[in-house]
Amino acid sequence: MTETTVRPSDATGGHAATGIGPGAPVLAFDVGGTTIKAAYLDADGVPATILRTPSPAFGPASAQGVLDSVVELSRRLTPPGAAPEAIGLTLPGIVDDETGFATYSENLGWRDVDFAALCASRSALPVAIGHDVRSAGTAEMELGAGRGHRTAVVVVLGTGISAAVFVEGRPVVARGYAGEIGHAVVVPRGEACVCGNQGCLEAIASAAAIARRYSRMSGREVAGAREVLHAMIQGDRVASVVWDSAIDALALGLSHVVSLIQPEVIILGGGLAEAGEHLFGPLEERLRSMLTYVPAPALARASAGENAGLLGSALLARRALARAGTERGVTG
Amino acid sequence: MTETTVRPSDATGGHAATGIGPGAPVLAFDVGGTTIKAAYLDADGVPATILRTPSPAFGPASAQGVLDSVVELSRRLTPPGAAPEAIGLTLPGIVDDETGFATYSENLGWRDVDFAALCASRSALPVAIGHDVRSAGTAEMELGAGRGHRTAVVVVLGTGISAAVFVEGRPVVARGYAGEIGHAVVVPRGEACVCGNQGCLEAIASAAAIARRYSRMSGREVAGAREVLHAMIQGDRVASVVWDSAIDALALGLSHVVSLIQPEVIILGGGLAEAGEHLFGPLEERLRSMLTYVPAPALARASAGENAGLLGSALLARRALARAGTERGVTG
Repeated sequence: MTETTVRPSDATGGHAATGIGPGAPVLAFDVGGTTIKAAYLDADGVPATILRTPSPAFGPASAQGVLDSVVELSRRLTPPGAAPEAIGLTLPGIVDDETGFATYSENLGWRDVDFAALCASRSALPVAIGHDVRSAGTAEMELGAGRGHRTAVVVVLGTGISAAVFVEGRPVVARGYAGEIGHAVVVPRGEACVCGNQGCLEAIASAAAIARRYSRMSGREVAGAREVLHAMIQGDRVASVVWDSAIDALALGLSHVVSLIQPEVIILGGGLAEAGEHLFGPLEERLRSMLTYVPAPALARASAGENAGLLGSALLARRALARAGTERGVTG
Repeated sequence: MTETTVRPSDATGGHAATGIGPGAPVLAFDVGGTTIKAAYLDADGVPATILRTPSPAFGPASAQGVLDSVVELSRRLTPPGAAPEAIGLTLPGIVDDETGFATYSENLGWRDVDFAALCASRSALPVAIGHDVRSAGTAEMELGAGRGHRTAVVVVLGTGISAAVFVEGRPVVARGYAGEIGHAVVVPRGEACVCGNQGCLEAIASAAAIARRYSRMSGREVAGAREVLHAMIQGDRVASVVWDSAIDALALGLSHVVSLIQPEVIILGGGLAEAGEHLFGPLEERLRSMLTYVPAPALARASAGENAGLLGSALLARRALARAGTERGVTG
């Protein structure tokens, strides 16, 4: 088992959030398809170190494997004499973060796991369950580009595309199915998608899709969307076509988001957001041209940093405590 | 001024809602582009008659004209000895029903009118401001096809297309801009829309668009979508093409709604919903084929009836009273 620990300031760069502010000390976990990030956050809300350890192997036993890791890492990460008061556990896939029920993880292979019940059986502390994109979104709303906004959408543009949706300050969960905008159709009967459908936003505009489509159209294999962007900047026509079609698809997808709930801001994160002005400039222009009837919201770059999911876990843990306190009648 | 009064049971047919249930007596108004509907609802929540009177003429003075009508009709509609406790006033256009501020009405010609302040200066009763589609949606949620649901979208398919969006039981308002799905693009650079854009959902799938597109493609003028439907049933190929493209556009638009907020139910109303199975059957099938990653929600036909907007106004009036009571500390 290969583990690494990093100081959060190294990992996230100078601009990203490095803590969640003062409050109860908590343990936070962010379970991804390949890596679990874990941290203890003290009463200042700052993780001293972030531990990265491999996720359990694919299969039905992976859920139990995650719990084993949580129990073991909780023990190891808690400093001598410290007493964390809650755990935040963020999971991938389709997860209902309101009930703690995980329907499905494509990467880890579980189905229909009641994580809330499992956690209660393994931990004396209250455990808040999170969903990866919504936890990162929660961190954006409280610590990043979403601060001060009530209705906002945080879109993660990476291997796939999905979103965390906030209405009046609260995440829309819908049993774990909200925000899956990557699988909304933008080109009817278009490009095949991994989900079995055709013309999904994700099949055209994700970082993976941009690389895959360029490789196929140009006959030149590229490792990622970054290479396609570089080729475009150097005048490669095929790269331009692929990039522009991704921008068009994103604008169309976002125009539907705006038309339905008119968020104050759309926050873009994930690998593709690193393209900066090459993404934001044309996307803003295209989106604006598609929205004649309602105002175009601001587009903003995600700023909570690469540990947003972990910090979101910690925020959820704090909230679970606040809720438990309220339910016990202890509001102070 | 041509006025008509009807008994609500005549107007709505046997199945529609005819009242809002017991509570405080209120006055309700539903201002449309051509007609104002008005009613007094007694403590049983039933409007004895519904009065229809022409809307004021187009222009900036129309806002004041609406207020004049509200004042006059309130006096006339209130039975001798009765004491309505609040007014519900539903308006067309872009209206922020949370603040009572109306940004814009295409049909009546006002801009930036603070109806909340105007009403306060003209009426001693509390006035709740509503937005036409959201008021009808509120009636659907409380009295119609939305009963028992918390997250739902009520889509009105008429001359235009727009929606009322409910998340966790509350309408999404967004300063009045939420739910304008008729102007989300479904065919990039497609059919010209009245809004100045191209390829909007409304330009392809509204009842008006279906009639217009059929007339243009067939060279035969038709009065409405109903005629196109009849032509299709009789084997007219052009009618089939126009109808199918409307269904495809609607399915695509709704697939985005589902992907973003995954409503438990999508309720379809307006003239086009009268097509019944010719609309619901193929739409449900097409939508299901577009949603491989998330569940397809139920589609339901609006059932609150043609006075849904008026009944929604009355519900808002009751809520305004309840809120005022809570604010005064009178919760009983």
